[in-house]
Amino acid sequence: MAARRPKMIYCFGRTKTEGKAHQRELLGGKGANLADMTSIGLPVPPGFTITTETCASYNAKGGRLPAGLMGDVQKAVKRLERETGKQFGSNTNPLLLSVRSGAAVSMPGMMDTILNLGLNDVAVEGLAEGTGNARFAWDAYRRLINMYGDVVLGVHHHLFEAEFDKVKKACKVAEDTDVPAEGLRDLCDRYKKVVKKHTGKPFPQDPFKQLQLAIEAVFKSWSSDKAIAYRRINEISGLAGTAVNVQTMVFGNMGNDSGTGVAFTRDPSTGKNVFYGEFLVNAQGEDVVAGIRTPRPVAGMKRWNAPVHTQLLKIRSKLERHYRDVQDIEFTIERGTLYMLQTRNGKRTAAAAVRIAVDMANERLINRDEAILRVPAGDIVQLLLPSYSAADKKGADMLCKGLPASPGASCGKPAFTAEEATKRAQAGESVLLVRRETSPEDVEGMHHAAGILTSTGGMTSHAAVVARGWGKCCVAGAGDIEIDEKGRKFKVGGRTFSHKDEISIDGATGEVMAGRIEGSTPKMSKHFSTLMKWADAKRRLKVRTNADTPEDSARARSFGAEGIGLTRTEHMFFEGDRITAMREMILAQTQKDREKALKKLLPYQRKDFVGIFTAMKGLPVTVRLLDPPLHEFLPHDAAAQKVIAKQLKVKPSEVAKRVEALHEANPMLGHRGCRLAVTYPEILKMQVTAIVEAAIACRRKRIDARPEIMIPLIGTKQELALLRALVLGTMESVRVKKKVKGALNIPVGTMIEIPRAAVTANEVAEVADFFSFGTNDLTQLTYGYSRDDINGFLPDYLEQGILERDPFQSIDAAGVGHLVDHACRGGRKCKPKLKLGVCGEHGGDPDSVDFFEGVGLDYVSCSPFRVPTARLAAAQAVIRRK
Amino acid sequence: MAARRPKMIYCFGRTKTEGKAHQRELLGGKGANLADMTSIGLPVPPGFTITTETCASYNAKGGRLPAGLMGDVQKAVKRLERETGKQFGSNTNPLLLSVRSGAAVSMPGMMDTILNLGLNDVAVEGLAEGTGNARFAWDAYRRLINMYGDVVLGVHHHLFEAEFDKVKKACKVAEDTDVPAEGLRDLCDRYKKVVKKHTGKPFPQDPFKQLQLAIEAVFKSWSSDKAIAYRRINEISGLAGTAVNVQTMVFGNMGNDSGTGVAFTRDPSTGKNVFYGEFLVNAQGEDVVAGIRTPRPVAGMKRWNAPVHTQLLKIRSKLERHYRDVQDIEFTIERGTLYMLQTRNGKRTAAAAVRIAVDMANERLINRDEAILRVPAGDIVQLLLPSYSAADKKGADMLCKGLPASPGASCGKPAFTAEEATKRAQAGESVLLVRRETSPEDVEGMHHAAGILTSTGGMTSHAAVVARGWGKCCVAGAGDIEIDEKGRKFKVGGRTFSHKDEISIDGATGEVMAGRIEGSTPKMSKHFSTLMKWADAKRRLKVRTNADTPEDSARARSFGAEGIGLTRTEHMFFEGDRITAMREMILAQTQKDREKALKKLLPYQRKDFVGIFTAMKGLPVTVRLLDPPLHEFLPHDAAAQKVIAKQLKVKPSEVAKRVEALHEANPMLGHRGCRLAVTYPEILKMQVTAIVEAAIACRRKRIDARPEIMIPLIGTKQELALLRALVLGTMESVRVKKKVKGALNIPVGTMIEIPRAAVTANEVAEVADFFSFGTNDLTQLTYGYSRDDINGFLPDYLEQGILERDPFQSIDAAGVGHLVDHACRGGRKCKPKLKLGVCGEHGGDPDSVDFFEGVGLDYVSCSPFRVPTARLAAAQAVIRRK
Repeated sequence: MAARRPKMIYCFGRTKTEGKAHQRELLGGKGANLADMTSIGLPVPPGFTITTETCASYNAKGGRLPAGLMGDVQKAVKRLERETGKQFGSNTNPLLLSVRSGAAVSMPGMMDTILNLGLNDVAVEGLAEGTGNARFAWDAYRRLINMYGDVVLGVHHHLFEAEFDKVKKACKVAEDTDVPAEGLRDLCDRYKKVVKKHTGKPFPQDPFKQLQLAIEAVFKSWSSDKAIAYRRINEISGLAGTAVNVQTMVFGNMGNDSGTGVAFTRDPSTGKNVFYGEFLVNAQGEDVVAGIRTPRPVAGMKRWNAPVHTQLLKIRSKLERHYRDVQDIEFTIERGTLYMLQTRNGKRTAAAAVRIAVDMANERLINRDEAILRVPAGDIVQLLLPSYSAADKKGADMLCKGLPASPGASCGKPAFTAEEATKRAQAGESVLLVRRETSPEDVEGMHHAAGILTSTGGMTSHAAVVARGWGKCCVAGAGDIEIDEKGRKFKVGGRTFSHKDEISIDGATGEVMAGRIEGSTPKMSKHFSTLMKWADAKRRLKVRTNADTPEDSARARSFGAEGIGLTRTEHMFFEGDRITAMREMILAQTQKDREKALKKLLPYQRKDFVGIFTAMKGLPVTVRLLDPPLHEFLPHDAAAQKVIAKQLKVKPSEVAKRVEALHEANPMLGHRGCRLAVTYPEILKMQVTAIVEAAIACRRKRIDARPEIMIPLIGTKQELALLRALVLGTMESVRVKKKVKGALNIPVGTMIEIPRAAVTANEVAEVADFFSFGTNDLTQLTYGYSRDDINGFLPDYLEQGILERDPFQSIDAAGVGHLVDHACRGGRKCKPKLKLGVCGEHGGDPDSVDFFEGVGLDYVSCSPFRVPTARLAAAQAVIRRK
Repeated sequence: MAARRPKMIYCFGRTKTEGKAHQRELLGGKGANLADMTSIGLPVPPGFTITTETCASYNAKGGRLPAGLMGDVQKAVKRLERETGKQFGSNTNPLLLSVRSGAAVSMPGMMDTILNLGLNDVAVEGLAEGTGNARFAWDAYRRLINMYGDVVLGVHHHLFEAEFDKVKKACKVAEDTDVPAEGLRDLCDRYKKVVKKHTGKPFPQDPFKQLQLAIEAVFKSWSSDKAIAYRRINEISGLAGTAVNVQTMVFGNMGNDSGTGVAFTRDPSTGKNVFYGEFLVNAQGEDVVAGIRTPRPVAGMKRWNAPVHTQLLKIRSKLERHYRDVQDIEFTIERGTLYMLQTRNGKRTAAAAVRIAVDMANERLINRDEAILRVPAGDIVQLLLPSYSAADKKGADMLCKGLPASPGASCGKPAFTAEEATKRAQAGESVLLVRRETSPEDVEGMHHAAGILTSTGGMTSHAAVVARGWGKCCVAGAGDIEIDEKGRKFKVGGRTFSHKDEISIDGATGEVMAGRIEGSTPKMSKHFSTLMKWADAKRRLKVRTNADTPEDSARARSFGAEGIGLTRTEHMFFEGDRITAMREMILAQTQKDREKALKKLLPYQRKDFVGIFTAMKGLPVTVRLLDPPLHEFLPHDAAAQKVIAKQLKVKPSEVAKRVEALHEANPMLGHRGCRLAVTYPEILKMQVTAIVEAAIACRRKRIDARPEIMIPLIGTKQELALLRALVLGTMESVRVKKKVKGALNIPVGTMIEIPRAAVTANEVAEVADFFSFGTNDLTQLTYGYSRDDINGFLPDYLEQGILERDPFQSIDAAGVGHLVDHACRGGRKCKPKLKLGVCGEHGGDPDSVDFFEGVGLDYVSCSPFRVPTARLAAAQAVIRRK
């Protein structure tokens, strides 16, 4: 006796629905969804799903259908005939089916949809008669033969195309839609001949034969090379096979009592709680999408068919109660009967996401945790910055696309040097700084420009990082642009743009457009504030900001920053007279001369720190000591070197010689960071003096200044021990000189950004009051990728799936993350209360924030505009771990 | 009742010796050694040692001498009086003492020696009378007052110097040694006044008072800032204090029956088993060293004093039996009586070390394991290379000093470009290639040059690595040299050298000298072969070599290499026509054009591989696929670009544009290694085709070719999986094309040189047949140090003790080593039999080899001349772990 046969088919329909929402493994995603929709009482066109196990069995047997399957299929079709009152292959009222594959996870590479299955030479006549629309019927038939021939019988699509071209020529029309019914009937004959010629067999007229071959084609497609490769690359395993969904076709173009539409249960643009959508009478779904006819808003349906309208409104609230989220639905009305074809969670703007989440929580549809999780944390930065909507950009003159390096929208005329940008901006012009790449020398010009456009450099290039820090619009690495700095122009796509031609850039998409395009600046909504309040109540991680000026600090504070995690001090050396003193220091031959030059810089730095400490009073401010290599402060071209030589009263050859001496093959791995402080301790002493004097000055004015001193690029404990002693010694001598009683309470910590520091963190922690992970450099060194040069190969890496995403955007948990985790454990093993934070770009990336919650950091620090994102992401990370 | 007092004093002498050799903790190194020498019956001047615990007690009590100490000291001095027949402070035959500090480990920063203690105004007369040498006596006394005043009483040395100058002026002499007895007597008076004036007290006349203060001074010096700092920096802890050694003075200048000498128990230069040394009659030790008088060889002592000579020969063999090593001894004969002042293991040349070790093992003085451990593995490379002896360089015209980048000795006239070097060398001239730094473009010129001198770059710069690989002499980073390439000259120390001026370089010391200096090439000795045979029998690690040519391979094989661990393929692209095809490939716009150019390169590469496989038949040959960035194959100056443009029939601007496009900010972290293969898979395919075709060609000629294909710079498993598939696919298609039946058995592995690959080694191993650690790049990335730029700060780091040594020379166990260990564990967890090796420069460094033995690698690979070093170090590592 044979073992009991497993159930191979699950029906869904008015009279019987067997599948459940949770049976994705067995029924595939689509099958489970259809069963779910049906079971809550939605009017879904009836159908059935053949299980994934059946597919597995078919493939295991080398392509033989399991015994009894087609018998069960016939029974299931009978049920459909009963429910619809139509008949499979009928010449009066034919039942037409769609056949689709559907595995447990969405997966390209498998068989596409087949529509109109069940049509044959007889049924097509029935359809023509039943609909009173011969053109529609023959069009449906030719579509079936084409699709079926292509995907089931393996006849190449272009063979059908060639016949269609001939028919169009014969009918003297250009568009498919202009071919009359007769032409389509002729086309069906030609298509059938193509099938015969290339398969040796006629197009199957038996509807069940059609169905069986279609089911087998779906089964086979699971084992196609493409599908197997897709699963291998995406590491999808453990699935039995694909399910097959067979469903009744319904038509919205069966007359004026028919129609079709799409809708959202709430406005996906604003989030407002209104039914939002449109429909077309006597039309198919594709007509709505094609945009040839203008659909009417769903509100207008009441006048056309009030009962259907009422039914839709009921479905709307049923869907939201059931799925507890905004639904994006497709529906069709066939001869007055409403059918729901699809429902899925609706895509929405960031603003809508916030409003919907808060509203739904207030309506008790979801709880606050769910509301917090509903808003993609990375998207809310859009709510703070000016932007271009699709409407703004409609018809824009697109020039090229770079990387969306820093969101925002800006337009202006190009300036090709930082000096030019500053000068013209100060004269009131709106300029975009257009450069090959930027360097710290350009910072003032970048600051004055309305936006920044570079032709090289990646998402974490200098331009991108600085721009994001300020919330300034930046498109980086627009490689199609050829910049002629001397000629004050750039070329792109054969066109030339001078400093007089306006252009616009979209930092959210990377688009570069000719001409002036106006964007819009959103206001922060009440809903947004509510959501952030809820998030703050949940999160454990503190959120600090990376800011180098009092203005940035104040802005970040308004966005909720709880301190500064990274104040870079190098920018402070570039403004006005300072750079001259800095250059004097670099060109000095002796320590004494260096100290003399540094003395001039001290008051500037002190003033800067007073400003920042004041803006952040009561909150910690982590100041990083000088980091970049000294050559960044000297110009590399002879003309500029000459100017400096004159200023500093030295020979131009001396300047050139110093630049040459400072040249490095790999500056990223060179003489910078704390290595400068080891060689030139006087620089460190000046900076520490400025910090401490600023703190003392603030405190004397009853401003609660809380500096923390951070030493960059530490690789060994010995290095940090030496420099820590130097910092503490300097602090103490300032304390004595300024006659301060009692301790200064200024922690001295280190960045962990060199792999060796992470590896030996247990030792390094002995001489550190805190760790701050510099995940930018840590990623550069762990991968051996230069951020400035990664564009040479990153596109290939992403395209070939070697990297899932740019590791500078989102932390690489397995590699870089392993080192972070190792360092956290090592550091805390040495000092259980060691404060741990991150100040790399990853601090504002939601996935990375989730990782940092997991390893137990105390805070993340990110650019000001990313602070709300980090606050939300930190709350989501806590909730996800519950 | 008081607790029993600990024993504070340990005597040594003819009548009683209390200390033992193992009591270093208690008696200090020197004290234990004196006790040991005495206890084996050597005629050591008697004395006693005050324990380190006594010092601890003194310091713990805030500088109070423990009760009873001075009483014990008096008793011990009495014993010395009895043994020597002299009397402390006597005016006829005074006992003089030396006082020295001595902790368990040698430690600068503590008190220096005090000699002649016990002299006072009375005893000095006794000494003058006893020796019949008033000058000697007063000289001894003035030395005592000076030393004692300086180190015990804290009177600054220059105050004594000033008085000495006055006396010399008064005596009208220039040299100290020319001052007569009367002058010295006057000087003693002046010195005593200096002491009185600056301490308020007269120079102590009581010998016991002198002794007590001296002992206290030694105790205090343990806690001096300098000594504490030294212990902190060198992480010396757990020691109680320093011992004090008080010993009878003996004098070799008491007449013609007195003398002094130094000797080695075997010839320290050749290792020959002969007594080797020299002595001076009527002289002090310093006279031998000073070289004013010519000493006689010890063999000549027989005629002077046969019994003493016989006694010395007996001591010689007693010492070798006791210490089981060559001893370097100091001795003095005072009025016919022999005293041994010191014995220590003798320093020796590498050749001597080998011979002594083998001879001693054959003489059964030591066993073979000990013999193997006795030879510093790093030194034996000297035995294979030409070298300059100190004699060769005597009176040489030193110009400057660079880094000893690759040992050897060479002289020639400078050539300032690789082309020039090649041309002139081929014309028969001996040239030294003198460049700022070298790059792969220069390889041919480097090969033809007799030696290489660079003005920048470190021990692992391109020049250094390539030169060491060939055993070619190289001095790198000679920063004092200013090269004028166009002018064909260089400047150093104000002098100019043109292409016509001969210079000589010593790669073992880094010295650069003017003129032609001849060196010598040693032959490998029988003893050397024996030692290597013994080492090979012990070691577990296999030793391979890094070699890129058949010649290097053959040489390495003759040095005992058991395969090639690294064949770099980039050099293969530079010779003759190849570079043109390579450049054509780089300038190609399409894959098709690149393939066309690569097709031209294929036969060259195949031929190279056939040569290498043939030289290494029967042994594995690991071939690394192309590693450097493409820009290294293009010239950077306009003139050379023009030439290329003409050759390749393109516009010069196109060449310049390509060079510009390939420019990278940090090429070390850029588009190179396997990243090239991802972007240009056709390069990989060509190389794999060449390797496989070469292997097949060899095997058809019954040459057992055993290639292994190694993919460089892997950072992720996905990357290696993709490229491995490409390699295997290419291998398979060559196999089919060449109609080879059966598997090719060519393993495909990866370098582990990116920290991320080490961190995720457990995953990477899934798709690797072997790992080879590229510790050069791994060190660069783990520390964030560019080898090319490290000289900007490395000197400061070494000087300040942040780094103990250059991590590119010897592996950093805590950081880089941690990653290597982690990767070994991860790799073997995934694949227990995964083959593990190292091919970085560390493969030839003995300390690193010891580390690699510890983590369980299968093999190390190093440059040919380092192979014997690695073989020996590998054996030592095994023995040390027993």
